[in-house]
Amino acid sequence: MIAEILSVGTELLLGEIVNTNASYVSERLTNLGIDCYYQTTVGDNADRIKNTLGIALERSDIIIITGGLGPTDDDITMQAVADFFNEKLVLDQESLKSIEKFFIALDREMTESNIKQAYRPEEAKVISNPVGTAPGIIWEIPEYGVNKSKKIILIFPGVPEELYAMWEQTADNYLKQYSQEVLVIRNLKYFGVPEAALANKVKDLMEKSNPTIAPLVGKGETRLRIVAKAKNYEEANALIDEAEKEVLSRTKEYFYGYGDETLEQIVGELLLEKDLTVAVAESCTGGLVSSRLTDISGSSRYIKLNFVTYSNESKIKTLGISDKIIENYGAVSDKTAISMAEGVRSLSDCDIGVGITGIAGPTGGSENKPVGLVYIGICNRHKLEVHEIRIPSNLPRTEIKYRASQYTLNYLRLFINKEYN
Amino acid sequence: MIAEILSVGTELLLGEIVNTNASYVSERLTNLGIDCYYQTTVGDNADRIKNTLGIALERSDIIIITGGLGPTDDDITMQAVADFFNEKLVLDQESLKSIEKFFIALDREMTESNIKQAYRPEEAKVISNPVGTAPGIIWEIPEYGVNKSKKIILIFPGVPEELYAMWEQTADNYLKQYSQEVLVIRNLKYFGVPEAALANKVKDLMEKSNPTIAPLVGKGETRLRIVAKAKNYEEANALIDEAEKEVLSRTKEYFYGYGDETLEQIVGELLLEKDLTVAVAESCTGGLVSSRLTDISGSSRYIKLNFVTYSNESKIKTLGISDKIIENYGAVSDKTAISMAEGVRSLSDCDIGVGITGIAGPTGGSENKPVGLVYIGICNRHKLEVHEIRIPSNLPRTEIKYRASQYTLNYLRLFINKEYN
Repeated sequence: MIAEILSVGTELLLGEIVNTNASYVSERLTNLGIDCYYQTTVGDNADRIKNTLGIALERSDIIIITGGLGPTDDDITMQAVADFFNEKLVLDQESLKSIEKFFIALDREMTESNIKQAYRPEEAKVISNPVGTAPGIIWEIPEYGVNKSKKIILIFPGVPEELYAMWEQTADNYLKQYSQEVLVIRNLKYFGVPEAALANKVKDLMEKSNPTIAPLVGKGETRLRIVAKAKNYEEANALIDEAEKEVLSRTKEYFYGYGDETLEQIVGELLLEKDLTVAVAESCTGGLVSSRLTDISGSSRYIKLNFVTYSNESKIKTLGISDKIIENYGAVSDKTAISMAEGVRSLSDCDIGVGITGIAGPTGGSENKPVGLVYIGICNRHKLEVHEIRIPSNLPRTEIKYRASQYTLNYLRLFINKEYN
Repeated sequence: MIAEILSVGTELLLGEIVNTNASYVSERLTNLGIDCYYQTTVGDNADRIKNTLGIALERSDIIIITGGLGPTDDDITMQAVADFFNEKLVLDQESLKSIEKFFIALDREMTESNIKQAYRPEEAKVISNPVGTAPGIIWEIPEYGVNKSKKIILIFPGVPEELYAMWEQTADNYLKQYSQEVLVIRNLKYFGVPEAALANKVKDLMEKSNPTIAPLVGKGETRLRIVAKAKNYEEANALIDEAEKEVLSRTKEYFYGYGDETLEQIVGELLLEKDLTVAVAESCTGGLVSSRLTDISGSSRYIKLNFVTYSNESKIKTLGISDKIIENYGAVSDKTAISMAEGVRSLSDCDIGVGITGIAGPTGGSENKPVGLVYIGICNRHKLEVHEIRIPSNLPRTEIKYRASQYTLNYLRLFINKEYN
């Protein structure tokens, strides 16, 4: 059976809130192995709710509706759905008792308008709400339309916490019977390779259907998403493992992690594993690399002392960079980046030093040294390297800073892998 | 004319990402005074894109489509839309040149598949993409369907930064002609006051209808949103000005800025205005305060040299904090915060020094010094102050860091206002 999501709420159409409920329900359906081809959002308007419900019932079997179950006059979802099927709402005594109990527990007066929330279509079953006043429903319609096919309507409140709690307590279990297979998703994360080039390397694999492989662009990075369907998780994971092996054999040089893993996390794990410390001297990134490295719990084991040397004077006086280097090559140069790395490594007495200097923009660029030009120096006691990168000049300053930090963390990762293996 | 939003992307249906594009477009339409009654999401599937487009054209006049303009085989939006109208795609030479330039600027090879992105329906105008490779289109269809009514299709890439840039440069201006009534939204931003307390101060004003006033909770801060509708911007702004005056008379002590203004921006403006420099020594925030201060273009005029002193040794050796202070009071203490501020001010030779020390968690807390305890010291040549703050222990580490940086920037703002007036 195919599911479809219908989100109700004028605030969604005004752009006041982001529709996290739709992505939540989609993710849960995906995990259950139930396909969902459409999501629709409408306001708190009876005609438009009915119109959308009619369209959804033409093309899908399970309609999941969220929002519009509150106590106020603009909450009309339950009534509109009942009207669509020409059914009446009846007062559900159990629900009424729950709502009354809810107010007693909060030591608050129940208002007349809360009674409305206890109504349901006669044939529907109630989904109780453990964290709020609005119950939901599961309504099975045995024969709908000219095909007389079975349709199922689930309605949930729009408050995310209430939806989550009710979904986990009731809907997941109920919907399992309509799942034919499980679906497992694994994301491989890459840095330093554009989406098109990455896709090119696995073009033939992208044409296969189980697992499917698709490239995605994230914030300053690229992913390959592998999705497998199977009767159970073991089989799905085995399909993914096999595909991943082939994918990595072609793309390993750019691969750095899975799913939610970040570059700072991977770098942190490497530093701990190899018992190394690192020190960073930042100019154009202004502390962002240091901040990302310290986003990881336990980072005090590898971070001791970092510097943000924003002025030329601080680069010379604090890091000990020769004023000749800055005079002859400029503060934004490979020589300066390397000197920063060497200076901060020695000052902080760490194993690895990193220096970053560049032009974050939007001003300060020139023809020779445009906005987005960044030099990254990395060194240890024996070895030093420097990288020149060019980030698109027209990106916002914060995005240029972020991408420069991505490059830095990735070069640091590669340096550790190369030097300490 | 009525607008409708169509989001394309299988990742949305799988629940892998939240549809922030739909809320962005909705918000922009709201500001333009153009009604939007439906949002629909479909996957990268030609039949379903065409099916949804057909439904949208039945009930709306302006269809705004996002996503599916990438270079890979699963990006099929432009082709599907052209197919729907039985139109062919033609190669747009200007777009091709822009894409080529984009790759030259990045010093990267353009792939064959990127050429696909330069195609457009013959009658459509191109919306150029200042930050990526995929151009968008504005396609006016003079007579559609049995009613022969005018329809407009706008297509944008799904990468949020590209959508935003293209919308602001092109779509906003283009769509203005279809707006009947304007709606102006002004957000007043507050720090250091809970939503309920703020709402209480303006309770009576919240019951009025034009402008409406509503409190909102953001990331570590609170907003009051004032919304006015009128025939033109002048009238709407006059309504808001009047309401704002009354609101600020009751809430001024917590107010710091408008709309998108950030604390780092306000602090930066104050520093420039009063010709001051500032230096920061960070422990628990790990460079985040420095990074936020340098997010502002022109910050090199007030930032010279900042430190991330993560280890005790670096606090003692580099900032010159007495080891007795750390021994007797601990690295997380008011005395240490003040010494860090004094140390960094003198080392950086700046007007103002700021020191931040605390426990970012999730480990490292104790009964006396729980996770979330943070001390912020601020000084100039004549005056010093220290603040103890307690952020909820159960928040994630990155959120504790962020809130500590919010407090720091806000105390810095208040310090400048107090000391340099």
